Amino acid sequence: MSRFRVGILGATGAVGQKFIHLLHSHPWFEIAALGASERSAGKRYADAVNWIEPVRIPESIASMTVQACDPALMPDLDLVFSGLDAGVATEIEASYARAGIPVISNAKNYRMDPTVPLLVPEVNPTHTALIRRQSFDPSGKGFIVTNPNCVAVPLAMALRPLHDAYGVEAAVVTTLQSVSGAGYPGVASLDILGNVIPFIGGEEPKIAEEPRKLLSVLEDDGRLNWPEITIQATATRVPTIEGHLLTVVAKLTRQPASIEEVRELFRSFENPVARYDLPSAPKHPILLMEDDRHPQPRRHAYLENGMTVSVGRLRMSSVFDLAFVALGHNTVRGAAGVAILNAELLVAQGFLRR
Amino acid sequence: MSRFRVGILGATGAVGQKFIHLLHSHPWFEIAALGASERSAGKRYADAVNWIEPVRIPESIASMTVQACDPALMPDLDLVFSGLDAGVATEIEASYARAGIPVISNAKNYRMDPTVPLLVPEVNPTHTALIRRQSFDPSGKGFIVTNPNCVAVPLAMALRPLHDAYGVEAAVVTTLQSVSGAGYPGVASLDILGNVIPFIGGEEPKIAEEPRKLLSVLEDDGRLNWPEITIQATATRVPTIEGHLLTVVAKLTRQPASIEEVRELFRSFENPVARYDLPSAPKHPILLMEDDRHPQPRRHAYLENGMTVSVGRLRMSSVFDLAFVALGHNTVRGAAGVAILNAELLVAQGFLRR
Amino acid sequence: MSRFRVGILGATGAVGQKFIHLLHSHPWFEIAALGASERSAGKRYADAVNWIEPVRIPESIASMTVQACDPALMPDLDLVFSGLDAGVATEIEASYARAGIPVISNAKNYRMDPTVPLLVPEVNPTHTALIRRQSFDPSGKGFIVTNPNCVAVPLAMALRPLHDAYGVEAAVVTTLQSVSGAGYPGVASLDILGNVIPFIGGEEPKIAEEPRKLLSVLEDDGRLNWPEITIQATATRVPTIEGHLLTVVAKLTRQPASIEEVRELFRSFENPVARYDLPSAPKHPILLMEDDRHPQPRRHAYLENGMTVSVGRLRMSSVFDLAFVALGHNTVRGAAGVAILNAELLVAQGFLRR
Amino acid sequence: MSRFRVGILGATGAVGQKFIHLLHSHPWFEIAALGASERSAGKRYADAVNWIEPVRIPESIASMTVQACDPALMPDLDLVFSGLDAGVATEIEASYARAGIPVISNAKNYRMDPTVPLLVPEVNPTHTALIRRQSFDPSGKGFIVTNPNCVAVPLAMALRPLHDAYGVEAAVVTTLQSVSGAGYPGVASLDILGNVIPFIGGEEPKIAEEPRKLLSVLEDDGRLNWPEITIQATATRVPTIEGHLLTVVAKLTRQPASIEEVRELFRSFENPVARYDLPSAPKHPILLMEDDRHPQPRRHAYLENGMTVSVGRLRMSSVFDLAFVALGHNTVRGAAGVAILNAELLVAQGFLRR
Repeated sequence: MSRFRVGILGATGAVGQKFIHLLHSHPWFEIAALGASERSAGKRYADAVNWIEPVRIPESIASMTVQACDPALMPDLDLVFSGLDAGVATEIEASYARAGIPVISNAKNYRMDPTVPLLVPEVNPTHTALIRRQSFDPSGKGFIVTNPNCVAVPLAMALRPLHDAYGVEAAVVTTLQSVSGAGYPGVASLDILGNVIPFIGGEEPKIAEEPRKLLSVLEDDGRLNWPEITIQATATRVPTIEGHLLTVVAKLTRQPASIEEVRELFRSFENPVARYDLPSAPKHPILLMEDDRHPQPRRHAYLENGMTVSVGRLRMSSVFDLAFVALGHNTVRGAAGVAILNAELLVAQGFLRR
Repeated sequence: MSRFRVGILGATGAVGQKFIHLLHSHPWFEIAALGASERSAGKRYADAVNWIEPVRIPESIASMTVQACDPALMPDLDLVFSGLDAGVATEIEASYARAGIPVISNAKNYRMDPTVPLLVPEVNPTHTALIRRQSFDPSGKGFIVTNPNCVAVPLAMALRPLHDAYGVEAAVVTTLQSVSGAGYPGVASLDILGNVIPFIGGEEPKIAEEPRKLLSVLEDDGRLNWPEITIQATATRVPTIEGHLLTVVAKLTRQPASIEEVRELFRSFENPVARYDLPSAPKHPILLMEDDRHPQPRRHAYLENGMTVSVGRLRMSSVFDLAFVALGHNTVRGAAGVAILNAELLVAQGFLRR
Repeated sequence: MSRFRVGILGATGAVGQKFIHLLHSHPWFEIAALGASERSAGKRYADAVNWIEPVRIPESIASMTVQACDPALMPDLDLVFSGLDAGVATEIEASYARAGIPVISNAKNYRMDPTVPLLVPEVNPTHTALIRRQSFDPSGKGFIVTNPNCVAVPLAMALRPLHDAYGVEAAVVTTLQSVSGAGYPGVASLDILGNVIPFIGGEEPKIAEEPRKLLSVLEDDGRLNWPEITIQATATRVPTIEGHLLTVVAKLTRQPASIEEVRELFRSFENPVARYDLPSAPKHPILLMEDDRHPQPRRHAYLENGMTVSVGRLRMSSVFDLAFVALGHNTVRGAAGVAILNAELLVAQGFLRR
Repeated sequence: MSRFRVGILGATGAVGQKFIHLLHSHPWFEIAALGASERSAGKRYADAVNWIEPVRIPESIASMTVQACDPALMPDLDLVFSGLDAGVATEIEASYARAGIPVISNAKNYRMDPTVPLLVPEVNPTHTALIRRQSFDPSGKGFIVTNPNCVAVPLAMALRPLHDAYGVEAAVVTTLQSVSGAGYPGVASLDILGNVIPFIGGEEPKIAEEPRKLLSVLEDDGRLNWPEITIQATATRVPTIEGHLLTVVAKLTRQPASIEEVRELFRSFENPVARYDLPSAPKHPILLMEDDRHPQPRRHAYLENGMTVSVGRLRMSSVFDLAFVALGHNTVRGAAGVAILNAELLVAQGFLRR
């Protein structure tokens, strides 16, 4: 089959660059348009971008002309990926959806809209049904799907099997987040070299809220029923490049019979979308590590091209019930990679068609 | 008055170097002997040491001859500071105490001995009374006093006012510890540059246990009554040089009326040893910071020569009752500096005499 | 005597903060005014600044009101220190000089003006005579004195004794510069963590040119006679916080008799301004290190409060004549510290008076 | 064809791990034996190794049994790759060569032996003829081939076209070397975090000498004629993980007509072994970068799987003739990767047969 023609909005930003890196040889998607701010519009992509990915700009992309983010300028697109800043995403993403172009967005703007799926394929693949309740495009062709915050993704993935087996009531989370999570230029080197910043603006409320929407039950009436889970987060920035590490202590409704039972739960996690054989799906969405010193951002964030969430240090807790650490690649599994996986799921489920 | 003649055991190690740096111009103490392993004994100190402090070796120390750690070789000492490795501290420290030389130790070996004070002057200054129950030296002259683990110090200092005001029942703690905490050579650069290691061997049990001894009540019978506090710790290593940062969520017996009340509690913390005017005592043992981005290891670990514990991000918690972060300089406030402050307290209380 | 009343221009920037840190308890100078951009004018200093120094803002400074950089708003100043950006320094600094207020500037704008001293007290203290040729203020009271670029300072200091003894004809220099040299926010952490950037915009021409003006001979006609020294520089940025390290290979006119002779030359360097006993002058402006692994930025940049230039790895070169490395604290010895030392020299020489 | 059966000596070390990572799915070579010290012999590889590569241990390797480094214990090998420490390599490598097993070594021990090729395929592919002069194995089957030091590789590669076109007479080199170059545990994090060490023991003589052997002319009598090139090196360690950066200023016999001519020389570099189509050969052994800020270790060391040497900042020099920077991946292009490429060349040239 011919590939879907995709546009990338916010193509010169850090997330946009990651989209290009991950998509430029994708079997299902073909980059057909690059959208950025007016300042970049009209330039060759290679001239408009301050390329920071550790590979060279794909040659076919380097010579493309950047366009303004206007659906009228990008005819014949099957979908767009959005790496837009929150400051402009609300209007632009809606304009594409209204124009009949599905938007797979990494921006936060529509994440809490009750008709917009906040999607991680391994966590809540059925939430795509919410799309039918959207009103952007009466024809039903244009819609918006979002992925969660870069911490919420690995947190929800690690909580999914625990919640199903035991019920999660509360979690105390500390994050050690890498500098790539702040975009570019992002964190000043003078602030973070040999240092820790014990606060990331706007991050903790997302970590507290988004996993709850992800773990919601889709009711028969098409609405989400949110679980009662209380999450207390302290988000810190540490001098790592890629990969967000989380320490988690979780309170459960039912007690595990043993720590070995919980280990087996993670080891035997059944990926609900495994049957679709999606191109970007990792073989191990969750990987349990036995070495106490693992997982580590620099060594394990890139496992399976950055799509694996590693879980380690699993142990019973003296305060709550269970303690562990989790690691996810923030710009892949927590941003561009999960967005692409979401798009692949939408193809498999028939929401994306040509 | 003439100064106390002090020896430093483990003088070539990282803690020993910090002792020298902090003591070489101390108003009460005069470095009179340097003890190290047989390998170093007989050498000039400057030749025996791989000096890593960011100042030059004090000239008067550089030319001293290193001795083996044997009290018979070091007559006329009034006390020794021990930065010995745990592998050798048990025997050597006891030999000094038996020889009538008080030992102010940073080693872990005697911390849990019920007759040995685990001491932080601002937390439990009366625990020095335990010394009278020791049996190392029938004359009562020689004894051992220890300071806690480098995380337990700032944690106990931050919990002290909370426990007094509200009762602490439990705490979930994540530590972000600097590489200097592992000594020298310590952590391999290949392991920690741009990375986090989510485990530090032997650290978490100390964090769980030592604050409880520190917060114990000294009963009339001379024994310690330990409080029921459950601490769940996850200890991580991050690429910082000095300063351990802690994120803490605490469960309290009584609820604070408001977060402002807790703020005021920290701001008005009354230092129980302030009246002694000890030379190494900081003006602010606990410093409350209002900027969400503070405290930070590289910027605040050295406040008041590394003796201040900074507390920040104070807020009510949705899971337990109170959340905050704390920062302490691990090799000063958490090791050599607190040991020296302990010795100063012992002078003020009359336990150290010439 | 009462202290000189000084203003700090660019007081909220990185260099301005360093000025405040170094001056707030200075024996000769008293901070009487803080100048910054219109955006900050009228605010309390503590509210206007993003304070990045690793100490707390001095309390007396925190509550001062920031003013616009206009001499009319700052009456009764004896001099100003300028940490202004190059984009605004030309006009503002001239306005102060014209108003009769001497300007001790770290900005590059007037460094190459033939009537403006480019000054490092230990290198060219007599160049202050150029002041008399300035025409900013006909009364002679207002003038401008500049200090060199942060690399040119330690380079010129290390070349000074070599040039006097042997004649320096050429030098090949590679710099390893810390991130604080780029100001704040400066270098993005994503660009420099675990990385090297082999280029610093605008830096290499300054390194090639400024040491020549510093090593010029002041002729009887009051003009500078520049030496023929060719400097080839490659300036790189490395992930260090403070301290610029230089590797240098130098071609000499006359050959040293031995490397020991050169060692002795550095060891016996005679500070031409030693007799003034300036408050900020280090005991060792140049310190020769014998350990091959020294000097190191993190361990030695702060020697003598950051005013010492360390020289190490001194050896004969197979290509040119002499090879060595040098280290200077870029924001102290290479910026605010040398500017203050310059002002102290101007007091000692009688150029600054009340 | 069936694959060559290869052994890896020093399999648990840092270079050995890189050999395994690069070889475990190699089209021509199959890992058939793992050799290490007596301490590891008899253990499962996964139990013997402290695995530090940022991928998981290949499953087929994890369960292999480590053997002592004795050719009698490893029958049926076609060749061995040696990542042995210099302290043991002389004897062990000779024992394999004498037993008729070719040794492709990264150790320094035999690099200067006049009968042992010091080989980089793109630089001196004909030097393999030296093998015929070796006397380890009278049958001619066993021999030793070495690769250069990790700095000498990119330096010689960058000098090759310059030497051919203009004649290189001298070079002043400063290296900024990553911590992986020191093996594991290697550099202590306390020594290098936020720091530079201006010395690497034993490194500078290799950088001065090895490129000369690499650029030698193989005379008709089978001996190497070394060129007169004087190299002055200052080797520094910086806090990067992988990739050694070099700044180079070169004196040439003949002057380039223009810098554009030199640019074109690098762009049109003709790889002398391109015709063999070796599996590990990069498409661009030398890649010229135009952006002044490039190449950078973290962003460009891994280009073409770490086998590309990047050259940038090419410009005429005011002191000598030409200045540039070069970057090579030290553990791939400068160690395990070049060794494998050497073995591939030996297959293509018929020196390695089954």
